[in-house]
Amino acid sequence: MNAEIIAIGSELLTPFRQDTNSLFLTDRLNTLGIEVDFKSVVGDDREHLVNAARIAFGRADVILFMGGLGPTEDDLTRECVAEALGIELRRDPGLTGDLYKWFAGRRLKMPESNLKQADVLAGAVSLPNANGTAPGQWLETEWADRKLVIALLPGPPREIKPLFDEQVMPRLRAIAPGEVIATRVLKVAMMGESACDELAAKVYKKYRDIQTTILGGAGEVQLHLRGRAKTLELAKAKVDRLADELEDALDPHLFSSAGESLEQIVGYYLDMRGVTIATAESCTGGLVAERLTAVAGSSRYFLGGVIAYSNDLKTGFVDIQPLLIKEHGAVSREIAVALAEGIRKRCGAQLGVGVTGIAGPGGGSEEKPVGLVYCALADGKKTEVVQKNFPGDRERVRWFASQQALDMVRRKLSA
Amino acid sequence: MNAEIIAIGSELLTPFRQDTNSLFLTDRLNTLGIEVDFKSVVGDDREHLVNAARIAFGRADVILFMGGLGPTEDDLTRECVAEALGIELRRDPGLTGDLYKWFAGRRLKMPESNLKQADVLAGAVSLPNANGTAPGQWLETEWADRKLVIALLPGPPREIKPLFDEQVMPRLRAIAPGEVIATRVLKVAMMGESACDELAAKVYKKYRDIQTTILGGAGEVQLHLRGRAKTLELAKAKVDRLADELEDALDPHLFSSAGESLEQIVGYYLDMRGVTIATAESCTGGLVAERLTAVAGSSRYFLGGVIAYSNDLKTGFVDIQPLLIKEHGAVSREIAVALAEGIRKRCGAQLGVGVTGIAGPGGGSEEKPVGLVYCALADGKKTEVVQKNFPGDRERVRWFASQQALDMVRRKLSA
Repeated sequence: MNAEIIAIGSELLTPFRQDTNSLFLTDRLNTLGIEVDFKSVVGDDREHLVNAARIAFGRADVILFMGGLGPTEDDLTRECVAEALGIELRRDPGLTGDLYKWFAGRRLKMPESNLKQADVLAGAVSLPNANGTAPGQWLETEWADRKLVIALLPGPPREIKPLFDEQVMPRLRAIAPGEVIATRVLKVAMMGESACDELAAKVYKKYRDIQTTILGGAGEVQLHLRGRAKTLELAKAKVDRLADELEDALDPHLFSSAGESLEQIVGYYLDMRGVTIATAESCTGGLVAERLTAVAGSSRYFLGGVIAYSNDLKTGFVDIQPLLIKEHGAVSREIAVALAEGIRKRCGAQLGVGVTGIAGPGGGSEEKPVGLVYCALADGKKTEVVQKNFPGDRERVRWFASQQALDMVRRKLSA
Repeated sequence: MNAEIIAIGSELLTPFRQDTNSLFLTDRLNTLGIEVDFKSVVGDDREHLVNAARIAFGRADVILFMGGLGPTEDDLTRECVAEALGIELRRDPGLTGDLYKWFAGRRLKMPESNLKQADVLAGAVSLPNANGTAPGQWLETEWADRKLVIALLPGPPREIKPLFDEQVMPRLRAIAPGEVIATRVLKVAMMGESACDELAAKVYKKYRDIQTTILGGAGEVQLHLRGRAKTLELAKAKVDRLADELEDALDPHLFSSAGESLEQIVGYYLDMRGVTIATAESCTGGLVAERLTAVAGSSRYFLGGVIAYSNDLKTGFVDIQPLLIKEHGAVSREIAVALAEGIRKRCGAQLGVGVTGIAGPGGGSEEKPVGLVYCALADGKKTEVVQKNFPGDRERVRWFASQQALDMVRRKLSA
């Protein structure tokens, strides 16, 4: 059983806006064992939409239409799907009443054009929309001797998501094929994509029935695992077996085996071990603190931090001797160490993080090029420091540096 | 003249990865007056891809295929487009030589399968790829008595972008229709989408030939303007006239009239006026400093900042009297003011920013609910403070708060 997702709306054909709902819908369809074979985007154009619908009816079993269910003349999904199927639209008296009530409740006069939102494909079930005026529709029908399942869904994410989970998923589950798909995401820090694949391939190549996809990013590689079986329990068990082996093969680089972010994992360890932390940043400009505090509950372990951009403040905030900066330069192993040790002491934290570097585009030299970063971690006994030359632009260097700093904390705590 | 963009790759049909190149391609095509009418995503499947190509040939004049140009057996774009057109692939001796050279230069033996990267559609021009081994292709042909332009492009963003700009754009420009499209993006801070539209609609409704799209986000509304004319100069002039009137109508909420981010605009004002700034944050956890320092050259005006998460550090970092916290609570108008004034003094900056609030999900009360935020801005004479109740989750509240703080700086400096 395969699916096509059709996103409707001329704004989705501009450089400014993109369909993102289809990722959510794909995830849900996959858990039921339904593969998405095609995704299409069409504008608010009658002929284009009717033709796109007919193409989809000819190549997919489940067709999800998103958007174009509003009351304006640009909202053509209902009438175009009816035309493509060669069936009628019927105005539903119950939905008509609901619309009148909705407007009356807000003391507004309903524009006549809104009534088209009460039009339902002949034979379809209307799906109430708790977060908007446009209801969805569900239709099981035949087309050219094939069984088709068609759903019309609202476009806004906060409308489509609850509607799909509550009303479409149970209906799809009842007709889905015998097999379901389980997925799992593993994440690895500070390792190249090919180095990661070299370790991982030895393992996942043995599991031919599990699809493994490797996606590289800045300071992070993700492994996406997908496995099929008769039940979700069996599919999960298959995927988990591979994940367990991969965890061993990728230790100690692997930081997450259920999709968590690096800052969530670091927060988890800090919280569990009752360890407090403080940060002193230069080139990352607050990014390490921002990521640590993005996690709910981080006030339990994150005490505070400083961004010591100017040399004076490196002295003022964390008591770094001006002579030390003069001797080694603000971007140096020594200053990273002093930032980490200084902020640890200043905040009374158990761990102190220090980051200094050259994010670019300016400020680099032959001796200290753009991308040079020092990260230090102090625990009161010894202070580790790592030197890196990160590639890429300012944003990428800063991200890499924050990833490096957080990963040093993770490795220390997970050891 | 219309276009279809076809993204090829099974990974684009999973919940994990999405085509983003099409936004870039749409922008470029639009500047030549070519509208994108369809976007499609197809997996690495021979039958699906041949059919998708034929559908595109029947409904678009310019068809851009992205991805599937690599050397593996999953890379089917070349052969499927040839099959759909009913033409041959020819192995190009020059490209074959290039491939051998590329591998020899890296002291690697070339796998036989790589030779398929030298296969070119009969009649097509090969487009060298400076950032990868897979060249693109450009073909002008006829299909069912219609002229078609077909380009095969590599999938990775850092390969497709330079290749498209340097080699495809000049060729498209030579055959593009007489009209081109100019675009412009205006941005407004801390104003709701409908309030913004109410002010803007009075203006843009007079300009019927310019398409205006309003997109709302957290603490920011964007207005996208698109106008057509015979030349880019004329199209720009039309769009600029509307933009000028909108700037007046949306003053002082409008902060950017050429797409810049709020932190870029704030940095521009600080730099131009030679004003220095420092930040003291609680609930935003470093986000305000991180955004300020994301701008290249920010070390000229950003001196430093603190994240005073614990109450002790509010005292330690910016000398807030413990009694003041006891009296008003850490989330209060008084503490925001004390943070702004304290950090200003501590860093010797001309402006000091203070932010305190409850980002959630925990920590809220009836009196001080999640989303309550105080932002203060001190200049040594007087200190402004704003109280807000932001909606949404932790991430959204923090973003809103940083947006509010940066917008206060912008308004002060642009006055």
